[in-house]
Amino acid sequence: MTKLWGDHPLDSRIEEYTVGNDHLLDLRLVVYDCRGSMAHARMLGTIGLLAPQEVDWLVNALTDIAALAEAGNFPIRRSQEDCHTAIEDALVDRLGDTGKKIHTGRSRNDQVLTALRLYTKDAVAEMSLRVGELQAVVRTFANRYQKVPMPGYTHTRKAMPSTVGIWARALVDSLQDDQRLLRAAHRIVDQSPLGTGAGYGVPLPLDRTMTAKELGFDRVQKNPIYAQNSRGKFEATVLHAMGQVLFDLNRVASDLVLFSMPTFGYFNLPEAFCTGSSIMPQKRNPDVLELVRARYHEVLAAEIQLKTSMANMIHGYHRDLQLTKEPFLRALDASLDTVAIMAAVFGNLEVDAEACTMAMTRELFATEEAYKLVVDEGIPFRDAYLRVKKDF
Amino acid sequence: MTKLWGDHPLDSRIEEYTVGNDHLLDLRLVVYDCRGSMAHARMLGTIGLLAPQEVDWLVNALTDIAALAEAGNFPIRRSQEDCHTAIEDALVDRLGDTGKKIHTGRSRNDQVLTALRLYTKDAVAEMSLRVGELQAVVRTFANRYQKVPMPGYTHTRKAMPSTVGIWARALVDSLQDDQRLLRAAHRIVDQSPLGTGAGYGVPLPLDRTMTAKELGFDRVQKNPIYAQNSRGKFEATVLHAMGQVLFDLNRVASDLVLFSMPTFGYFNLPEAFCTGSSIMPQKRNPDVLELVRARYHEVLAAEIQLKTSMANMIHGYHRDLQLTKEPFLRALDASLDTVAIMAAVFGNLEVDAEACTMAMTRELFATEEAYKLVVDEGIPFRDAYLRVKKDF
Amino acid sequence: MTKLWGDHPLDSRIEEYTVGNDHLLDLRLVVYDCRGSMAHARMLGTIGLLAPQEVDWLVNALTDIAALAEAGNFPIRRSQEDCHTAIEDALVDRLGDTGKKIHTGRSRNDQVLTALRLYTKDAVAEMSLRVGELQAVVRTFANRYQKVPMPGYTHTRKAMPSTVGIWARALVDSLQDDQRLLRAAHRIVDQSPLGTGAGYGVPLPLDRTMTAKELGFDRVQKNPIYAQNSRGKFEATVLHAMGQVLFDLNRVASDLVLFSMPTFGYFNLPEAFCTGSSIMPQKRNPDVLELVRARYHEVLAAEIQLKTSMANMIHGYHRDLQLTKEPFLRALDASLDTVAIMAAVFGNLEVDAEACTMAMTRELFATEEAYKLVVDEGIPFRDAYLRVKKDF
Amino acid sequence: MTKLWGDHPLDSRIEEYTVGNDHLLDLRLVVYDCRGSMAHARMLGTIGLLAPQEVDWLVNALTDIAALAEAGNFPIRRSQEDCHTAIEDALVDRLGDTGKKIHTGRSRNDQVLTALRLYTKDAVAEMSLRVGELQAVVRTFANRYQKVPMPGYTHTRKAMPSTVGIWARALVDSLQDDQRLLRAAHRIVDQSPLGTGAGYGVPLPLDRTMTAKELGFDRVQKNPIYAQNSRGKFEATVLHAMGQVLFDLNRVASDLVLFSMPTFGYFNLPEAFCTGSSIMPQKRNPDVLELVRARYHEVLAAEIQLKTSMANMIHGYHRDLQLTKEPFLRALDASLDTVAIMAAVFGNLEVDAEACTMAMTRELFATEEAYKLVVDEGIPFRDAYLRVKKDF
Repeated sequence: MTKLWGDHPLDSRIEEYTVGNDHLLDLRLVVYDCRGSMAHARMLGTIGLLAPQEVDWLVNALTDIAALAEAGNFPIRRSQEDCHTAIEDALVDRLGDTGKKIHTGRSRNDQVLTALRLYTKDAVAEMSLRVGELQAVVRTFANRYQKVPMPGYTHTRKAMPSTVGIWARALVDSLQDDQRLLRAAHRIVDQSPLGTGAGYGVPLPLDRTMTAKELGFDRVQKNPIYAQNSRGKFEATVLHAMGQVLFDLNRVASDLVLFSMPTFGYFNLPEAFCTGSSIMPQKRNPDVLELVRARYHEVLAAEIQLKTSMANMIHGYHRDLQLTKEPFLRALDASLDTVAIMAAVFGNLEVDAEACTMAMTRELFATEEAYKLVVDEGIPFRDAYLRVKKDF
Repeated sequence: MTKLWGDHPLDSRIEEYTVGNDHLLDLRLVVYDCRGSMAHARMLGTIGLLAPQEVDWLVNALTDIAALAEAGNFPIRRSQEDCHTAIEDALVDRLGDTGKKIHTGRSRNDQVLTALRLYTKDAVAEMSLRVGELQAVVRTFANRYQKVPMPGYTHTRKAMPSTVGIWARALVDSLQDDQRLLRAAHRIVDQSPLGTGAGYGVPLPLDRTMTAKELGFDRVQKNPIYAQNSRGKFEATVLHAMGQVLFDLNRVASDLVLFSMPTFGYFNLPEAFCTGSSIMPQKRNPDVLELVRARYHEVLAAEIQLKTSMANMIHGYHRDLQLTKEPFLRALDASLDTVAIMAAVFGNLEVDAEACTMAMTRELFATEEAYKLVVDEGIPFRDAYLRVKKDF
Repeated sequence: MTKLWGDHPLDSRIEEYTVGNDHLLDLRLVVYDCRGSMAHARMLGTIGLLAPQEVDWLVNALTDIAALAEAGNFPIRRSQEDCHTAIEDALVDRLGDTGKKIHTGRSRNDQVLTALRLYTKDAVAEMSLRVGELQAVVRTFANRYQKVPMPGYTHTRKAMPSTVGIWARALVDSLQDDQRLLRAAHRIVDQSPLGTGAGYGVPLPLDRTMTAKELGFDRVQKNPIYAQNSRGKFEATVLHAMGQVLFDLNRVASDLVLFSMPTFGYFNLPEAFCTGSSIMPQKRNPDVLELVRARYHEVLAAEIQLKTSMANMIHGYHRDLQLTKEPFLRALDASLDTVAIMAAVFGNLEVDAEACTMAMTRELFATEEAYKLVVDEGIPFRDAYLRVKKDF
Repeated sequence: MTKLWGDHPLDSRIEEYTVGNDHLLDLRLVVYDCRGSMAHARMLGTIGLLAPQEVDWLVNALTDIAALAEAGNFPIRRSQEDCHTAIEDALVDRLGDTGKKIHTGRSRNDQVLTALRLYTKDAVAEMSLRVGELQAVVRTFANRYQKVPMPGYTHTRKAMPSTVGIWARALVDSLQDDQRLLRAAHRIVDQSPLGTGAGYGVPLPLDRTMTAKELGFDRVQKNPIYAQNSRGKFEATVLHAMGQVLFDLNRVASDLVLFSMPTFGYFNLPEAFCTGSSIMPQKRNPDVLELVRARYHEVLAAEIQLKTSMANMIHGYHRDLQLTKEPFLRALDASLDTVAIMAAVFGNLEVDAEACTMAMTRELFATEEAYKLVVDEGIPFRDAYLRVKKDF
């Protein structure tokens, strides 16, 4: 067993307990870690800590490893713990002493931070894209059913007349504000932690601007203690932004579950989008909408875990952070998948205009009646209200 | 008892249960509700639903009520439930039928939304200001102790050398990113819900752009269903941003509690900032720091309540929202107070340079020793690391 | 200003920030603190640390203070911070040096713990009582509507036939299990912390068994460190138990909100239990049910705050606990009020048997049809299921 | 692809989104589901819905499947979704029409509930056992270091003298109360849902008492709606109980992380329990303790997810429950593993009696000095306190 920190024997129970499943989780991070290492190697070359030939060897080997990983051919052994050790092992296997030099001027802390941050930036960008696609689909849906009437509810009671178009556009607009949050989150994480070592810098003349630029970061995260303290915190902000999108989808899925009940029948989910029951032959269940609804709570729970785990702690890295990686990555997946599936839902959702129209019963127009009295007879709204109220 | 919705008798137990304590909470909202009502009255005048004289009367009365409220002389009776009824009652008392007209083209829903949003914008702006002041104080502190050495920790273990200046600047930088979030939150809430009625608009030709402009909103929140759905949601984003600031302060307070222990002695909180014990004569306790730490959890709990209360719900207003107001307002107070108190703490915090220097023991320099071997002898970092490790 | 810990001047900002509003919250604790102090005084007399005359004076004065508090005539000044100081001040005012002796062998820590625990025991017992009353009301309701048919739902879709009686009895049974939890919570908190001082005992030969017995505790909480560590933790268990009750009520309120919609009409909430709208004359809103639903989230948020505030902390008292008192007490109130109001709701809830009967449409009986095929024709259930499915 | 609910084609994106990873999670449930099915088959035989020969065939096949699963040789295909379909498929493969009959009188809902509940009962029982083992180890530890002095802290400040024995026994006592909660949780879940179908019973004369007895349940969960509504809710109570244990371990791990710092040195974690750093040669990090600390937050997040996902929902099964299974099972694992590892930690933890003794500095005895004045000179405690205070 190789450990980056050397070779004293670790109690097997402790090893079992501490290893976790990074060796599985990290498969998606290999490419990002290779990118970080390539930038680091090039920079070490520029400041003279690696010979040009060594830089080439390292970059070539890392390119190769990344390609293997993309093809699903770069497994991480449980004994290696995570992708970072697996990659360093592979480099040493191929390049001997040169491989060992890749960790010069770097700690596993800033290495992990860098890979995670690159991954996060991609995930947030992808989320923005998908939210944009969902908005386009919902906008088309809104246009198609623009004029179809639909009761508006307050307190889960018929309140005033509305339309399917207005209802759908509420989602589009809400997602638009979520896009702002996603951009803010992206902008906050868009800073390079590479070169901050274990949180206290590295006693070498690293060129942090160079690696930041090469990796496409907007700026360098200068303060090394802040770099460490931001781990977990940045993820919480990303999950908050993701969660706001999912909150919108939770609400709209709640609408769809209710109003696609035959009792209402405003919406109709095609049969291919419904699942059945193992015991009830008549059932067509909106499982997809229920899972959309539930995903919000999953992402929220992950956000809460991130927000509580590191509280009441002094500065600097703590191993507690280890357990924030999995809920974070899972919550990103859940968020991305859910936005995509809702685009499929809205692309196939049917509106029953007749059912909608029949639902536009008189009480929905009581407020208009009152306003008519205000405009036509010039009486104060309060009095008009009371006069109309008598009829209900 | 006056209720905006009329006069059927409400079961006394139900009334007791549903009223809540808005009559106390809302004291701070009176001024904001008056501002909203003035803009609304002027707009009603412009579109011809109020006579110019009526607008003047209403604006004058509202100006007067706001002044009374500022001076603490506008109590809200429990039977009035909230500030909105209290203000309408006062207008009717003073102006008779004209007073009753203020609710033309408005629902209590968009009225509450408007007042809360104006209040929220002010609170977020105030938070930005205070965070800026705190940053200034901490920057001064960082400059003063720029060069004082201080151990850097990982895993709550001495790791590498750092300085008090770097430690303090980590907070400044972190708050800088929090400012981004506060700005994003401010920008999201900066849209006028006035004119969306109960979530389905109002059948009158309201000029929403006019009221938005007069109230200083950046834009109109056009979709009325979205306006309702955003209640609670916007507050959650605001509390997330506030919470990120408090998270930073929680961590730094944790540092200060620990490193002001006599055992460490890096920091010293003046006696006037410490409290004692009822039983132990020697005690000087850092209560203020502990409460700063705890405030984070209070704000987080409020954020969670906001995020869970409205989930799994269909569109439109639900009375459930009522219970989100108090935790929201309390969390704003907690956030603002905590930032201010931390400025006082950093303005008075002493650094014991001698204690700091004595804490710079040899193990903090082990990494430097290894790097020295890399640079001086050209051996791979991994090998240098293992050679130095033998000494510890 | 009097502080139990003496007289060094405290920075006014720090004082403002740290005081909180115990002076208001603690009004309800005065009686409990007096009970604790009486038991403590009697015990000090028994072990010879107070003269018999002093014990009498103290007990009489405490009896008097408790009576004043019960009558609402024992205000706590903000400068006194909490009820404990206010009571000690009052004793010193009345009894001079004897008053000062009440704090012999006690710390504010075990004093607060004792008062809170006595209060908590009463609240849990009261909750059990009220849950029992609610169960009785719901049982009566279930009996009255025992045979009224009602569709059973899964996935918010009609699933199989059920009855109002079965639906209501589900609540009764669920509350029965909640009663188990309430009992477990009560039993856990039913131990006396009095005599543990600040968490490390007191160097005096206190008779802890005597005070525990006098105060009606089941047992002594022997380990003083545990006594301190259990603060916050015990409250979390109490709130979990309360929250389980509120979860049941949240679900049942969700049922009632939906199925009292005119579209369904299974249930009818009397007009005196509904509120109206400020703009829509026709509205009869089930605010009480919505607030019941929301109270669950309030209590849950309080539980979460209790569960996160003290995590990652070393042993012993921390001032962070201060901020757990208010959410705890408020959550107790919310729980007790909500159970009581639901008894009122079920006592007045009407069932529309005709609407229920009309809702028993054919698809609810599809499973029965399949089973009929199994029993009558002896074919496997899977095949019968598929045959019936064809009709839907 | 086989689905229990038949064969209409499901949109591939919806299938991908809804399937989840029950096919992996459920591996651990196969044995429990087989037990449930055996009891169900025997009961069907007793009431005449299966021939004796059919019962034998089913029981034998299920015994065989359970044995395969124990040996890791019963894979679940993703297309089968979960263990229930996989088992039914295997029965049909082996037994043809007889296999199809196993689902007679059962819904997937009560089937899942039964398997999960049997699994949960085992997990809670195992937790109790492990907590008992941990208590034994800590008791031994407490006895060994009974008299070693150790400072007691409040506000993270030296407060009063204590001992390692008292500190360790606080954990033992706290775990003792947790055992009560575990027992209460066990007792609550110990009721058989088998026979409640999809939440509305089954139109067949099932003998629910017989299956409950055979499966070792304490009682039948009679009300079928309650059976469904309790899913998620029972798990929340189980996780609350688990979480209380983990809270204790979080606090004690926080103590150990701090007081094993060389600066304090009260405790010493053997090298085989510590991990190193990839960059700092001197590091011996208490990762195991940090992960113990973090596990609390993981379990708490799972509990919160369970508590929020089903709120605001009407009665009956919702697919949202699907997403509660994974966090629940993971939280059980985390809880069980953490208790076991802490037994290993306490079995190997060393106490440095010399370091402890040297830490017993004078301020720890200030309260004793004051009490000495009370006892020796008979002055009120408040005055003695102030006199001693002058020296600090």
